[in-house]
Amino acid sequence: MANIVVQNIERTDLKLVDALGKCGVATVHEAQGRTGLMASHMTPIYAGARVAGNAVTISAAPGDNWMVHVAIEQMQEGDILVLEPTSPCEDGYFGDLLATSAQARGGRGLIINAGVRDVRDLTEMNFPVWSKAVFAQGTVKNTLGSVNVPVVCAGALVNPGDVIVADDDGVCVVQRERAAEVLKKAQEREANEEDKRQKLESGILGLDMYNMRERLEKEGLKYV
Amino acid sequence: MANIVVQNIERTDLKLVDALGKCGVATVHEAQGRTGLMASHMTPIYAGARVAGNAVTISAAPGDNWMVHVAIEQMQEGDILVLEPTSPCEDGYFGDLLATSAQARGGRGLIINAGVRDVRDLTEMNFPVWSKAVFAQGTVKNTLGSVNVPVVCAGALVNPGDVIVADDDGVCVVQRERAAEVLKKAQEREANEEDKRQKLESGILGLDMYNMRERLEKEGLKYV
Amino acid sequence: MANIVVQNIERTDLKLVDALGKCGVATVHEAQGRTGLMASHMTPIYAGARVAGNAVTISAAPGDNWMVHVAIEQMQEGDILVLEPTSPCEDGYFGDLLATSAQARGGRGLIINAGVRDVRDLTEMNFPVWSKAVFAQGTVKNTLGSVNVPVVCAGALVNPGDVIVADDDGVCVVQRERAAEVLKKAQEREANEEDKRQKLESGILGLDMYNMRERLEKEGLKYV
Amino acid sequence: MANIVVQNIERTDLKLVDALGKCGVATVHEAQGRTGLMASHMTPIYAGARVAGNAVTISAAPGDNWMVHVAIEQMQEGDILVLEPTSPCEDGYFGDLLATSAQARGGRGLIINAGVRDVRDLTEMNFPVWSKAVFAQGTVKNTLGSVNVPVVCAGALVNPGDVIVADDDGVCVVQRERAAEVLKKAQEREANEEDKRQKLESGILGLDMYNMRERLEKEGLKYV
Amino acid sequence: MANIVVQNIERTDLKLVDALGKCGVATVHEAQGRTGLMASHMTPIYAGARVAGNAVTISAAPGDNWMVHVAIEQMQEGDILVLEPTSPCEDGYFGDLLATSAQARGGRGLIINAGVRDVRDLTEMNFPVWSKAVFAQGTVKNTLGSVNVPVVCAGALVNPGDVIVADDDGVCVVQRERAAEVLKKAQEREANEEDKRQKLESGILGLDMYNMRERLEKEGLKYV
Amino acid sequence: MANIVVQNIERTDLKLVDALGKCGVATVHEAQGRTGLMASHMTPIYAGARVAGNAVTISAAPGDNWMVHVAIEQMQEGDILVLEPTSPCEDGYFGDLLATSAQARGGRGLIINAGVRDVRDLTEMNFPVWSKAVFAQGTVKNTLGSVNVPVVCAGALVNPGDVIVADDDGVCVVQRERAAEVLKKAQEREANEEDKRQKLESGILGLDMYNMRERLEKEGLKYV
Repeated sequence: MANIVVQNIERTDLKLVDALGKCGVATVHEAQGRTGLMASHMTPIYAGARVAGNAVTISAAPGDNWMVHVAIEQMQEGDILVLEPTSPCEDGYFGDLLATSAQARGGRGLIINAGVRDVRDLTEMNFPVWSKAVFAQGTVKNTLGSVNVPVVCAGALVNPGDVIVADDDGVCVVQRERAAEVLKKAQEREANEEDKRQKLESGILGLDMYNMRERLEKEGLKYV
Repeated sequence: MANIVVQNIERTDLKLVDALGKCGVATVHEAQGRTGLMASHMTPIYAGARVAGNAVTISAAPGDNWMVHVAIEQMQEGDILVLEPTSPCEDGYFGDLLATSAQARGGRGLIINAGVRDVRDLTEMNFPVWSKAVFAQGTVKNTLGSVNVPVVCAGALVNPGDVIVADDDGVCVVQRERAAEVLKKAQEREANEEDKRQKLESGILGLDMYNMRERLEKEGLKYV
Repeated sequence: MANIVVQNIERTDLKLVDALGKCGVATVHEAQGRTGLMASHMTPIYAGARVAGNAVTISAAPGDNWMVHVAIEQMQEGDILVLEPTSPCEDGYFGDLLATSAQARGGRGLIINAGVRDVRDLTEMNFPVWSKAVFAQGTVKNTLGSVNVPVVCAGALVNPGDVIVADDDGVCVVQRERAAEVLKKAQEREANEEDKRQKLESGILGLDMYNMRERLEKEGLKYV
Repeated sequence: MANIVVQNIERTDLKLVDALGKCGVATVHEAQGRTGLMASHMTPIYAGARVAGNAVTISAAPGDNWMVHVAIEQMQEGDILVLEPTSPCEDGYFGDLLATSAQARGGRGLIINAGVRDVRDLTEMNFPVWSKAVFAQGTVKNTLGSVNVPVVCAGALVNPGDVIVADDDGVCVVQRERAAEVLKKAQEREANEEDKRQKLESGILGLDMYNMRERLEKEGLKYV
Repeated sequence: MANIVVQNIERTDLKLVDALGKCGVATVHEAQGRTGLMASHMTPIYAGARVAGNAVTISAAPGDNWMVHVAIEQMQEGDILVLEPTSPCEDGYFGDLLATSAQARGGRGLIINAGVRDVRDLTEMNFPVWSKAVFAQGTVKNTLGSVNVPVVCAGALVNPGDVIVADDDGVCVVQRERAAEVLKKAQEREANEEDKRQKLESGILGLDMYNMRERLEKEGLKYV
Repeated sequence: MANIVVQNIERTDLKLVDALGKCGVATVHEAQGRTGLMASHMTPIYAGARVAGNAVTISAAPGDNWMVHVAIEQMQEGDILVLEPTSPCEDGYFGDLLATSAQARGGRGLIINAGVRDVRDLTEMNFPVWSKAVFAQGTVKNTLGSVNVPVVCAGALVNPGDVIVADDDGVCVVQRERAAEVLKKAQEREANEEDKRQKLESGILGLDMYNMRERLEKEGLKYV
């Protein structure tokens, strides 16, 4: 693959991004038709983190974080770095210095299907990271990669400028072109959920609220 | 397997259940002769959770949470849901709405050898879950399973009405018929441990407290 | 292998040890030339723990914690236990009683490529543990092992008296003979990092600070 | 758990056992209502092995094969050893000497949720093994376990005298009490499959043979 | 995601496909710039299998093989099925009956990031499969998916009509649009490799053949 | 770590090496006191391979096989390459061209805690490899490492010139200094095993041959 840096990517409006972030991963994932979810091994380095932003993508060689430096120059307010190594790796590509630089450019976090280090500092800096591993192993700066090309990160296709939503439930990618539509569905879903929550809290059963009894009987469920 | 819901299961007295819960997983597991422990991948979604309850068991198809709705109707005060998929799965069978419904019926928590979502909400609701994964992936409601049948969950056999004890150390199942006996042994063990703790704190060595030196020498341990 | 306990090991001066602990795992690992890091599955039982100490090593049979009792007698102020089972195991070799005994002797923590239990108590005791698993499974005391022999723990060679540094980023071993040299380099590195951090915070890019642009161009990176 | 050896177990008639063996794992598993299948990590040490036999079960401490010797005395013509360690382990509990002894008693194979060694010899002896690992690591003979008690092996409940069916697809347990019924269903299934195979071979589609088109349309599948 | 079946996909010419198949996975992967390789857990059910074909893709619910029946109708001479479940699953979606049907339509094999069964029969039929698991676990036919939509399979993006190349080294996807170009580069690479092989066989070192010595020295490699 | 190539290493006499190879991994591992065994994930690329040789060790960056070329120049008749990446990696560092070169220098095989490719060719060349993965992913030649330094490979410490023994049971390292002693014990063990095999074949039980009955009874085993 040619080693390129795409400089002018289209981003999603930050109002949309922020509104998607408020909905959270589970709701957004449902609203998008259950697509875009990264694998469950992508876990946050500290509990309670919630973030949304525009993806600046990185394709990097295993154990080589040179392209992270290149990518940071491409970051704007509201961006999130998304790194997939070209082969499985858990090295610590990213630590507090890079986070300082990313924050200085308005960066909001990192999604990395590899390792991260300086976890204590990143936590204090309130710089959230979802990663495959926490690992102090250092990296080199010898092999080129690419920035802002499409990547498959932890099983999900990410195009630069797509919206990343991440919280305690994991990481979900919203296609830029669909962001407004997905937000609308997510917000409808949320409104709908509040009503259901109240019913369930009052003791109404899902079996009744969703009219499941007839279908269960038809399928052959036996109560003994 | 026929798809059935067993409605009238025998439960363990909640006084026994609560007392077992106070002893904790490590002690109960020892008191029961080191049986009933689930695999170590069953981890709590938040630290510090401790719970005990009567098992309401669910056997469910992969990626299908229909039977969870069925099971919640069977819950009573002090129950804990125990779900094993019929094949390995990490989908998010359970979230805040189902937890709301389970809590409304007196449910105390969930043990699931699969995934869970809405972790932030569940944490705020103080609804503890031990799971194999945190994963926002949604499920369908198309395939029957069974409720309150014996299941092997994360390697441990669970019969409906057995006592589940869960804390930061994992999850242990106590057979209903043995609950009183196990509690007795667990409490004796605890009393005994307090005495040992004080001795060890004062500097007495386990080597001496347990009289190990002679046997070590006999087995051939050499000090050099 | 003969079953032996080496009683008089050389330790590293605690001033050196404590200073290395302050530098943290990522820095020490770099300062030592990126050697000595344990595998990323060695995770702390609670966030925020930081410790450094002299290694008292244990080679133990799977599911057998007899040698832990033997090792505790060998502990001195500032020591850390390092246990590698002779084959992969995740049993709970260690709990609050053993931690009480280790603390009574001045022990600072445990590194175990296996399981640990009583996590709640250990957290309250402020006794940090890095382990492969949290697992309540009990162990026996039937098979000899060795204490204070060289072990390969989670992929890293540890000699008794080596310095163990552990924090949220994992566990790193510093060879005793190199401790002073590694500390010097680590402290230089830290001083250097502070300067870099300020530059990055002010918006200077790594690309410029490290003079990467020319080399990137020479290697063929294309901006499009 | 008390350490016991149950000497007089009821076995399944070898005619039934052999007939189940001919049906193979996939068919038997279906005929039994999709129950009894062990986890997919239980793989054969050589391709092409097929076996069925009565289960002689072993619960053994990690890294301790003492109970294998005890179990071999309990073997009869047509038996298969089924070993589950009391906690996860991959040590080589079993090699060519034990296989020689088991074969001398009419034993047909080994199912072990742990490790095996001397794979070349076992292959030459035509002694099939399904295991979690191939690992030369030796074991000790220091800790008791039990023989012919119910065990959960690789996720499946096995009672002594149950029928074990194993082939390239894995391992399935048939409850002794249901063996005749399961065999009948398995044989019906096989007859039925032959007819289907011929239709499919001739180019008839499953969509038509199983009348799926109407239901697919009703569920909303769109052809574009 | 809407549930659709795309009927008229563009395929790659079978002459190109077959020529790519002869080059093999490692060469094709290199020729394509080291892209398109599936994860290493995708292993063949028998050694020595080599195949290339046009991808007919399937997105299926976990534990539900309904869409496989739908996909087989879409198969033509020279096609290979590529199945990715919508969430991680290792159930046996596919066995000898489906293989019979696929072969009747000219199908050449299956790539499935899940499980397969009837391995012995598939081997005898000479129907190659690369899968994540061998697992007899049966599936249901209750939930829709899609056929011939883009899928991310085992980490690689696959569009319907892309070329799949698979052998003992794994599975590689060649984009349809690039097939001719990749073949050309692969064949050049092969010609080039033959020359290198002869030199190396004669004792010439890679160090000299690739002129590495100067660069190694410049980078600082020390011979001691 | 400084990047060095140690050129004059001491090797073990090939008569010793070959004799150890004949004993096989399980026997040698026992004879050496159950030390030196690599992890069970190190599996052969084809069944039936058996090899022994002197270790030429490689420490290489993840995804970078430059040092393999350097190492091959250091090989002599009877050597085996042993490669450990500096962090976990499964890339295909080695294929048929490198094998051709290694064979031209008298090399006997490769032990690599990473990936290998061209498995079909390597099999035809009769060049055995034990690896963590089969993976076509290519590597670069940008980062230095070291040759003939001590490495921890798959959990076992390997010094250059140590004897590697590998077969279907895995890989074992024999320390050069202990090779003659270990061979002697291994051969005694083999002689001893033949006698045991005949006894077991004749129907004598291990329980009697090893006089286990008394100790089992003393430990409390109950026959019921």
